[in-house]
Amino acid sequence: MSFALGELAVRFGCELRGDPELRVAHVATLADAVSGDLGFLANPHYRPQLAATRATVVVTDAAHAALSPVAVLVSANPYATYARIAALLHPGPAIAAGVHSSAVIDPSARLAASASVGALAVIGPGALIGERARIGPGCLIGDGVAIGADCLLHAGVTVIAGATLGERVRIHPGVVIGSDGFGFAPDAGAWTKVPQLGSVRIGADVEIGANTTIDRGAIGDTVIEAGVKLDNQIQVAHNVYIGAHTVIAACVGISGSTRIGARCMIGGAVGIVGHLDICDDVVVTGMSMVSRSIGAPGIYSGGIPAEPAPLWRRLVGRFKRLEALAERVRRQERSNNRNPA
Amino acid sequence: MSFALGELAVRFGCELRGDPELRVAHVATLADAVSGDLGFLANPHYRPQLAATRATVVVTDAAHAALSPVAVLVSANPYATYARIAALLHPGPAIAAGVHSSAVIDPSARLAASASVGALAVIGPGALIGERARIGPGCLIGDGVAIGADCLLHAGVTVIAGATLGERVRIHPGVVIGSDGFGFAPDAGAWTKVPQLGSVRIGADVEIGANTTIDRGAIGDTVIEAGVKLDNQIQVAHNVYIGAHTVIAACVGISGSTRIGARCMIGGAVGIVGHLDICDDVVVTGMSMVSRSIGAPGIYSGGIPAEPAPLWRRLVGRFKRLEALAERVRRQERSNNRNPA
Amino acid sequence: MSFALGELAVRFGCELRGDPELRVAHVATLADAVSGDLGFLANPHYRPQLAATRATVVVTDAAHAALSPVAVLVSANPYATYARIAALLHPGPAIAAGVHSSAVIDPSARLAASASVGALAVIGPGALIGERARIGPGCLIGDGVAIGADCLLHAGVTVIAGATLGERVRIHPGVVIGSDGFGFAPDAGAWTKVPQLGSVRIGADVEIGANTTIDRGAIGDTVIEAGVKLDNQIQVAHNVYIGAHTVIAACVGISGSTRIGARCMIGGAVGIVGHLDICDDVVVTGMSMVSRSIGAPGIYSGGIPAEPAPLWRRLVGRFKRLEALAERVRRQERSNNRNPA
Repeated sequence: MSFALGELAVRFGCELRGDPELRVAHVATLADAVSGDLGFLANPHYRPQLAATRATVVVTDAAHAALSPVAVLVSANPYATYARIAALLHPGPAIAAGVHSSAVIDPSARLAASASVGALAVIGPGALIGERARIGPGCLIGDGVAIGADCLLHAGVTVIAGATLGERVRIHPGVVIGSDGFGFAPDAGAWTKVPQLGSVRIGADVEIGANTTIDRGAIGDTVIEAGVKLDNQIQVAHNVYIGAHTVIAACVGISGSTRIGARCMIGGAVGIVGHLDICDDVVVTGMSMVSRSIGAPGIYSGGIPAEPAPLWRRLVGRFKRLEALAERVRRQERSNNRNPA
Repeated sequence: MSFALGELAVRFGCELRGDPELRVAHVATLADAVSGDLGFLANPHYRPQLAATRATVVVTDAAHAALSPVAVLVSANPYATYARIAALLHPGPAIAAGVHSSAVIDPSARLAASASVGALAVIGPGALIGERARIGPGCLIGDGVAIGADCLLHAGVTVIAGATLGERVRIHPGVVIGSDGFGFAPDAGAWTKVPQLGSVRIGADVEIGANTTIDRGAIGDTVIEAGVKLDNQIQVAHNVYIGAHTVIAACVGISGSTRIGARCMIGGAVGIVGHLDICDDVVVTGMSMVSRSIGAPGIYSGGIPAEPAPLWRRLVGRFKRLEALAERVRRQERSNNRNPA
Repeated sequence: MSFALGELAVRFGCELRGDPELRVAHVATLADAVSGDLGFLANPHYRPQLAATRATVVVTDAAHAALSPVAVLVSANPYATYARIAALLHPGPAIAAGVHSSAVIDPSARLAASASVGALAVIGPGALIGERARIGPGCLIGDGVAIGADCLLHAGVTVIAGATLGERVRIHPGVVIGSDGFGFAPDAGAWTKVPQLGSVRIGADVEIGANTTIDRGAIGDTVIEAGVKLDNQIQVAHNVYIGAHTVIAACVGISGSTRIGARCMIGGAVGIVGHLDICDDVVVTGMSMVSRSIGAPGIYSGGIPAEPAPLWRRLVGRFKRLEALAERVRRQERSNNRNPA
């Protein structure tokens, strides 16, 4: 399926610099593009590739448009415009409505006629599957779970504990939603399990990466608001709240009952301790440990870049002797004060 | 199902301050409770919610009992007592014994008549499933695996390599037990796989959180002793030993052949290098790197809390110049010693 | 199945010191070995166990051979030689070719007659399964995926997005290959999904540990070269490139578009930010944050070992006051320069 540049310009509100009759069918990187491809330049890091590109057209902003050797679709937000055009050119495989004969559907589950259920998926008692929702092969949908319209659950997703998903939620393989939170009461040298009775509520347009886990609440619910994007291998503990449009990179761990505001950006492998309150519009850079609530928007950091090992060993040695160094400075100060020159 | 406060007091050994005929049917947080609910106060953090609670009864200790506006079940360990009452009020769905027609059971597997096996589960040759054990939908139980009585494997759990589980083990979705350990011998510029031949032994009353992985031993076994509680997304390498009643929070990684004692508490995202020996009763706080054996009980830490990014950048810069700072102090000391005032 | 020491010596190119008629059938640790077992000594850490071993034969190097109380197979690389002999003695369960009756195979998939497919596996349209490849129970192989000859996919592996696997790739349970990368364009306060259109290419002899995730490329492919070994719970983002024979320990996260060279060794829980270039032969020790490209082979570190909590708190306090300490040193220097003794 190919589209004329003139049609793309109209459909996506871009200024076209070039021949409106030219057609594109695929997207490509500036470096790899050939005739018939659409490329884009959003990250100035890739500007050097623009001059030599063989793409038919490039999506970029006004500042870079003049540098293009080929036609340009000028957009104030070239990355978002590229994303929309790419979705048009590459719509993904069509999935026919209907239930695969090998899937196991409880008679009390209710599936929209337009929904699809893949091979060897399990839909439990009382589950609801919304219009046009696609449940991939091997997914396990537990009792009373509600999947909203137009959701896409790729292969091997597990949703239990009566969790509810809003519309257009996308979930990648290996995700677990609704597992028990980690709650144990110390009791005479052992641990008594605290029943985990809450659920998980996920808003519209949330995306959840492969092998991420989201625990059910202990009493109330764990809540992921609309538009949140979670990368792979994230751990969301019981009763966490994540505000709308927050994005969280891979390998982050969020401990129980912590609230994260809206529009936050959490970098990879960040750890956030429990019972904190992170306000809206906070950015945390990768590998930071957040151990106190954050009440002011801004950027927070806690990671120390690696160094060649011999230098690092000396620095760690110095760090471990900081007490002694401070004491030496104090002695110098005292000595100088007692004996002013 | 509801219970009279008088019955709860007798059954759980609490002093009741209030009307023994009052009845409760659900648990709730102090803030959300309504009439007919039981709340609890164990963490003083939530004390401000006590005065306004509308719960029918609150479980708390003697020190807080006087502050309650409603009936109180007084317990020396209110969190554990709450946990037991919650399990009574909310027993979870009953699962009928029997094997779902879609499950695939090898003829040589032996299942207790009281066990249950969910939809599309696989039970391999020679596997043993104990009395009242519940194997959820989509679980994969490999050759020769033994599952103890009263175990609960939620959906999508994989147990292979002839692993053995004691009684009452609970395992959450996505857990993998018995995967190969990471063993490769360097050999002429490439890596030769070292066969992983051991198994995994898991004691009674262990709980294992979603997507946690426990590798089989290289020669001997990986061992998780009774009463251990593992949170989500923990990695336990080959031949690790974890002593009884140790609890480990999410995202921890434990490298091969390390031994962790009994009753330890390991915080989230801690990393523990291989071949170490951690004694009993050690606490490690979140995001620490444990790179040496620990021979004395106590609390160990290694994480540095995040700061606003501009401050953090200056601190990291100072850290990277610690060598130079120490050298400047040394010069001052020398200069002052050479020229005593 | 047992083998004579004389035969092992010939087959694996070792010098035999002892009776060539003695036979061994199993491997064991030096400490646990009994008659009929083969032990090995590669790590000098275990040398103290050699004198008392009851193994029939020990594989070790020339330097340790004289210390053995029993027969010795002398090898310049005893760990690799042990690995090969262990694979001979313990070949693993034979798996008959053929497709389990409960597996769901799309009619357009092409399976070699010598391949095997386990219970309740799903093979999608157009997938290719090579000679002698073994697809374990519960595996989900998506549309157009190509699995090379002699691959071994243990239970519950998901491969989608048209990924291609070379020969002899081994994948452990819970692995996800081909999930969408984390790509979203900021757009008027929300996030527009950037279609993930690339695939994953995995070379020959790669091994991938349990619950590791490898995302498909955004436009081009994510590439894992031949001989790479990945441990459990690693996250490989879109368009990452990992060079041949690199080994990566558990819990590592690699951000998008980063290139890692050949023969690198990455320690556990390392985090590597995106768009970096790590050259060949780089070693990164555990829990380091790599935030800049590395252009020179060598060892790099970034982790700080944990300490007893009271000491650690003081050190962190000192660290957080490094600015002030440096200022005090500067004041001393100024004062001493103004007032030379």
